Amino acid sequence: METPQNLAELLNADGFKSIPKSFIREILKVTAHSDIISFAGGLPNPAFFPVQEIQAAAMKALEKDGRRLLQYGESEGYRPLREYIAARYKQKHNLEVDPDVILITNGSQQGLDLVSKVFLNKGDRVLMERPAYLGAIQAFSAYNADIRTINLLDDGPDIERLTEILDKQKVKLFYGIPNFQNPTGISYSIEKRKQVAEIMNRFPSLFIEDDPYGDIRFSGENLPPIKSYLNEQTILLGSFSKTISPGMRMGWVVASKEIMQKLLIAKQLTDLHSNNLSQRVIYQYLMDNDFDNHINKINETYKRQCDLMVEAIMEYFPHDVKVTQPQGGMFLWLTLKESQNTMELFKIAIKEKVAFVPGNSFYPKNDCHNTMRLNFSNSDEIKIKQGIKILGNILKRNSS
Amino acid sequence: METPQNLAELLNADGFKSIPKSFIREILKVTAHSDIISFAGGLPNPAFFPVQEIQAAAMKALEKDGRRLLQYGESEGYRPLREYIAARYKQKHNLEVDPDVILITNGSQQGLDLVSKVFLNKGDRVLMERPAYLGAIQAFSAYNADIRTINLLDDGPDIERLTEILDKQKVKLFYGIPNFQNPTGISYSIEKRKQVAEIMNRFPSLFIEDDPYGDIRFSGENLPPIKSYLNEQTILLGSFSKTISPGMRMGWVVASKEIMQKLLIAKQLTDLHSNNLSQRVIYQYLMDNDFDNHINKINETYKRQCDLMVEAIMEYFPHDVKVTQPQGGMFLWLTLKESQNTMELFKIAIKEKVAFVPGNSFYPKNDCHNTMRLNFSNSDEIKIKQGIKILGNILKRNSS
Repeated sequence: METPQNLAELLNADGFKSIPKSFIREILKVTAHSDIISFAGGLPNPAFFPVQEIQAAAMKALEKDGRRLLQYGESEGYRPLREYIAARYKQKHNLEVDPDVILITNGSQQGLDLVSKVFLNKGDRVLMERPAYLGAIQAFSAYNADIRTINLLDDGPDIERLTEILDKQKVKLFYGIPNFQNPTGISYSIEKRKQVAEIMNRFPSLFIEDDPYGDIRFSGENLPPIKSYLNEQTILLGSFSKTISPGMRMGWVVASKEIMQKLLIAKQLTDLHSNNLSQRVIYQYLMDNDFDNHINKINETYKRQCDLMVEAIMEYFPHDVKVTQPQGGMFLWLTLKESQNTMELFKIAIKEKVAFVPGNSFYPKNDCHNTMRLNFSNSDEIKIKQGIKILGNILKRNSS
Repeated sequence: METPQNLAELLNADGFKSIPKSFIREILKVTAHSDIISFAGGLPNPAFFPVQEIQAAAMKALEKDGRRLLQYGESEGYRPLREYIAARYKQKHNLEVDPDVILITNGSQQGLDLVSKVFLNKGDRVLMERPAYLGAIQAFSAYNADIRTINLLDDGPDIERLTEILDKQKVKLFYGIPNFQNPTGISYSIEKRKQVAEIMNRFPSLFIEDDPYGDIRFSGENLPPIKSYLNEQTILLGSFSKTISPGMRMGWVVASKEIMQKLLIAKQLTDLHSNNLSQRVIYQYLMDNDFDNHINKINETYKRQCDLMVEAIMEYFPHDVKVTQPQGGMFLWLTLKESQNTMELFKIAIKEKVAFVPGNSFYPKNDCHNTMRLNFSNSDEIKIKQGIKILGNILKRNSS
């Protein structure tokens, strides 16, 4: 039985008219159970999921405090976990964060939804990097934001353009991923971080600093978050998805006290509070294990996989293809000749059992056709070589 | 450091101007760690949380499929869990539900948020029961709905009034809780269910059937969901919060195929997918245990607690107080004399170490001052007697 037309017409919330299903998640479905070499997803390497440690942590957490854990919890999140996160900012970045202004969310994606909910009215202007994280484009679009983009250069956003836009237009939020951006792998240099902070500081506008990959640095030195320079004017998002487990959906938001009060209301009416079981299990895991040692192991492997993929690209791809050189994260970004269309290449590649994400999805207006994103975290070294070779041949065949 | 005024002013999303923090969740904080007898919360009795069974299920789920479980999952939710839910509708209500149109959510509260997201534009009319579930008032308000209410009589909504409103005004959604409503404990009679379906069927408007308490029936017979009579025009919400664990935040939405496609996009951009760990653990729990037997044990106790509370009210409260006689759920609803103000009584009661929820919060316009909600699921028999006696004395002292 179909929904009658007059009912289907009710499905007309403004923000939803223009949002397509995530193409990436659709690709994931195609590639999940098949013999395809997939560089498409944004999946961490499951070899590093600490299954046994999580099992032990689950046992312990349920033993120690089972009834409390299975009951409703506080909307803010489990206090000891928030204290751990605060202490880690202090230790890693010498950043003072009060646990009171940390809200535990279902992955950092929910942080974007909650921030949108409390800030955005229809038509409010939001700045994003170009290209930008697809999940954020979708989240802001659902709240009818007017999205503008700023080119992402090799060392961060185009500062001249940022100044120009802020000078001319009222901008509510500027969203960026300063560490190993999705989709490009690009990081902001320390100078760019300072410049962004300095410029933002002159305008009544907030910087949304999304940092899901910060811990996944495999070369170069840790750089301070922009929040270090732009404290109360920054909303900082973090996540355990890339270090412990994405399936447990655990992220957080750090904001000022005033913003946190509103985010908390948004959290209450969205889903009351985050999953207690996962919060307690992750906390117990962090207490009983050497987290940094675990992260180092991930990073050693990711570095090898990243290096290998870059080398293979150098070897097999046409020489006019431009590739980023990330110091961490999970992605490479390729820019082909203007005349290329990666959506067309995708259709060919999928027939030859290799998948990637055509870059077009990462532009809010879908107006760039010659880029692609490659994920290196979730393929072993043999598949990386094989897959890149196949892609290289397709590119060469189609570049004349 | 405070947020500068010019930044605080950005926090002006329309839906958020009028939503107060949940008074109930604030009360919960006050009462959580103290010697207060609390009839305020909406907490299931933790004595029935199957801690050991959940522990065993967690072990097994992680053992069998740990790496997959900890990885990103599908936005729709874990397929076998959705099949279980579909089979249960068939078994319990002879209701045919395709697992494809079930979406797993973070408790049924998230269902409300997602439904609002795909349906509501500013000013869209939403009908609710009077009094109504606070979490739903909040969810719809955040999307700027124009909320109208229909009196809830002893056997369901005032049908005359429903017809009148639908005849005159364009209504997008009608939200109700036909089984053991929160806050009143009232259920729709079978006649009322049919009438609601019949009337709704004449208008292009959807019924949101929220059913978190359906399994918690301790007297009378199971009644068919309104979806049985109004199939594709109903969105049905369910939850494991009252039967297994609220802390694991597991609920679901059943909708038509067209609506599900939109809800799925909303789920993706809200938090990608629901918690895999909890989905797998609950599924494993359901496979390895007698769920109905577990529910029966809960219901036996809740019946005793409910009966005892009603008896104590008869004994200790002034005789002009009207109390509902629920056949399930977790709440009683009291209507006092017009001249009474339960918010004032709350202040006195809390000093005497007894808490309840003043009814005012459950009216979208906060325009009813002589009602209160009492929770019977989360207090033992001694506390129920003690607490009701204290409340009765306060009422008698203040009713002259």
